[in-house]
Amino acid sequence: MFVGVDLGGTKIAYAVIDYRQGRVLARYVAATNSADGPDAVLVRMSSDIRQVVADAGLTLADIRGIGCGVPGVYDDATGHTLFLPNLVGTWHQVPVGPTLTAALGIPIWLINDARAFVLAEAAYGAGRGQQNVVGFTIGTGIGGGVVINQRLYMGLDGTAGEFGHQTLALDGPQCGCGNYGCLEAFASGTAMVTQAQVLINAGQAPDLAQRIVHGAHLTPSLMASCSDIAVQQVLAQAYAYLGAGVANVVSLFSPHVVVLGGSVAQLGEPMCAAVRQVVQQRCRATPIERIAIVTAALGGDAGVLGAAVWAAHRSGTEDVHALT
Amino acid sequence: MFVGVDLGGTKIAYAVIDYRQGRVLARYVAATNSADGPDAVLVRMSSDIRQVVADAGLTLADIRGIGCGVPGVYDDATGHTLFLPNLVGTWHQVPVGPTLTAALGIPIWLINDARAFVLAEAAYGAGRGQQNVVGFTIGTGIGGGVVINQRLYMGLDGTAGEFGHQTLALDGPQCGCGNYGCLEAFASGTAMVTQAQVLINAGQAPDLAQRIVHGAHLTPSLMASCSDIAVQQVLAQAYAYLGAGVANVVSLFSPHVVVLGGSVAQLGEPMCAAVRQVVQQRCRATPIERIAIVTAALGGDAGVLGAAVWAAHRSGTEDVHALT
Repeated sequence: MFVGVDLGGTKIAYAVIDYRQGRVLARYVAATNSADGPDAVLVRMSSDIRQVVADAGLTLADIRGIGCGVPGVYDDATGHTLFLPNLVGTWHQVPVGPTLTAALGIPIWLINDARAFVLAEAAYGAGRGQQNVVGFTIGTGIGGGVVINQRLYMGLDGTAGEFGHQTLALDGPQCGCGNYGCLEAFASGTAMVTQAQVLINAGQAPDLAQRIVHGAHLTPSLMASCSDIAVQQVLAQAYAYLGAGVANVVSLFSPHVVVLGGSVAQLGEPMCAAVRQVVQQRCRATPIERIAIVTAALGGDAGVLGAAVWAAHRSGTEDVHALT
Repeated sequence: MFVGVDLGGTKIAYAVIDYRQGRVLARYVAATNSADGPDAVLVRMSSDIRQVVADAGLTLADIRGIGCGVPGVYDDATGHTLFLPNLVGTWHQVPVGPTLTAALGIPIWLINDARAFVLAEAAYGAGRGQQNVVGFTIGTGIGGGVVINQRLYMGLDGTAGEFGHQTLALDGPQCGCGNYGCLEAFASGTAMVTQAQVLINAGQAPDLAQRIVHGAHLTPSLMASCSDIAVQQVLAQAYAYLGAGVANVVSLFSPHVVVLGGSVAQLGEPMCAAVRQVVQQRCRATPIERIAIVTAALGGDAGVLGAAVWAAHRSGTEDVHALT
């Protein structure tokens, strides 16, 4: 058994995973409250891991390893976080791995949360049984990951798969990363919502404006359901960029499956269909008829499942679905 | 020993390779004369392979396999070529593999020529001893390839690594592949020369025009050596796009080494330095200080060497420089 943890900006999810079956034996979700500072968060994490293991009817001795997804950059060699922009306070050089291992006596491995998502979808979800799987997490930002032969392709320090930071327009808008024209700056949920807000302020999205007055939260899904032509154009343009970004990943990796996840994936089949159409137009040298472009299958469990798979792989447990 | 063949649009290169040492024991180059038709070309290839093996002081029985690089698309399962746009005549479903195997009694494996280039540079050249190596061939078009753990990463039907067909501008110029805004349409040698010709015709490149009148051939290298500001701007823009294309590959693969090859790589360090600068500006999430961006080390032998490495890998010979 493995424990998967998904440390997010607003909440932390925990689960005890039966790795062979990809089954969640127990789960628990708590607020991150990162304003309390890393030390307090780590004390709570240690306690919550004990609790979820007990909830599964197990003891810590039954747990072979813990995987912990983090929303940013970490140091694999030390188990320290380096840069978690969505958490309050400084998470630079926070010894997440060593602290939890010392408290629980169980080895722990960190993993980028987007990479964990793709690993889970490859092992148990939309890419199950497929050789090469890539995935996008489209939400506040755009993350990505690459699974080759059911193993995470890491690159230097686990930084391979930064799909959101590919350039799609040399002089495009500035991205949060500092570069100009990144996919993320065009097609993340944040980018879509920001453009919709501009339309609302300019009086060009009356239907959307009215829904928000009535208490709805401005999200890409709300945008998709409104009748404003200008808002639909914003979505269409975001899909065009997302499609180009997926097309580039397809041209470079030629994978069997592309999984689209993250909150924006709730846009579902209309978004997926638009992306497929762009890929068909742009990828002339790749047998795209054999590539599945699909939304994620595991829902909210992908983060904890992927973290557990990562712990299983790192602890030397053989692949669930290894292909030769 | 292995034989490496590089079937090009104008010439065919042959070499007998000592795979362990990456040493060329004998080499031979002949005109392709593809206008004679595939049958005649294959008869000559068979005869020339016999000759180069004899030149190495060996017999066909000493050769464990033949690798043959082709400038386009092939079917790995059948050994047939599918689409070789730079060869005269139709090379659709030409049984290159079966024909040569029947004539010589030696197994043969086809490989895309850009992939062969990267495999050679990873095994013996600029990426020697490095874990993950990507490469660009920049010439008439822009090809690419990916070597992970000293093995070619294939993707579906060997189509991974189509670096030239990544989109860098959604509404950019049309590429030969049919897509719009491909890297190849901005930064291939053909794209550079075409833009220079436009400047010459418009009288905006007097120095370049004069050199051509005196018999020089219009190439990117000639462009780099001329004093016309407009021509230098064309090169600078091509470098900006090439840099963005390399940056995208770096963000996605996070490799140890990026090798730039093909005829345009003769532009050397000025081009490489420009690319490095763009990568530094655009790749904010990747430890680029640990990534070498360099020009190819093997010169004209890369094609035959890579084809031989491919044959060695496919025949089950262990890696020369395998990393754990």
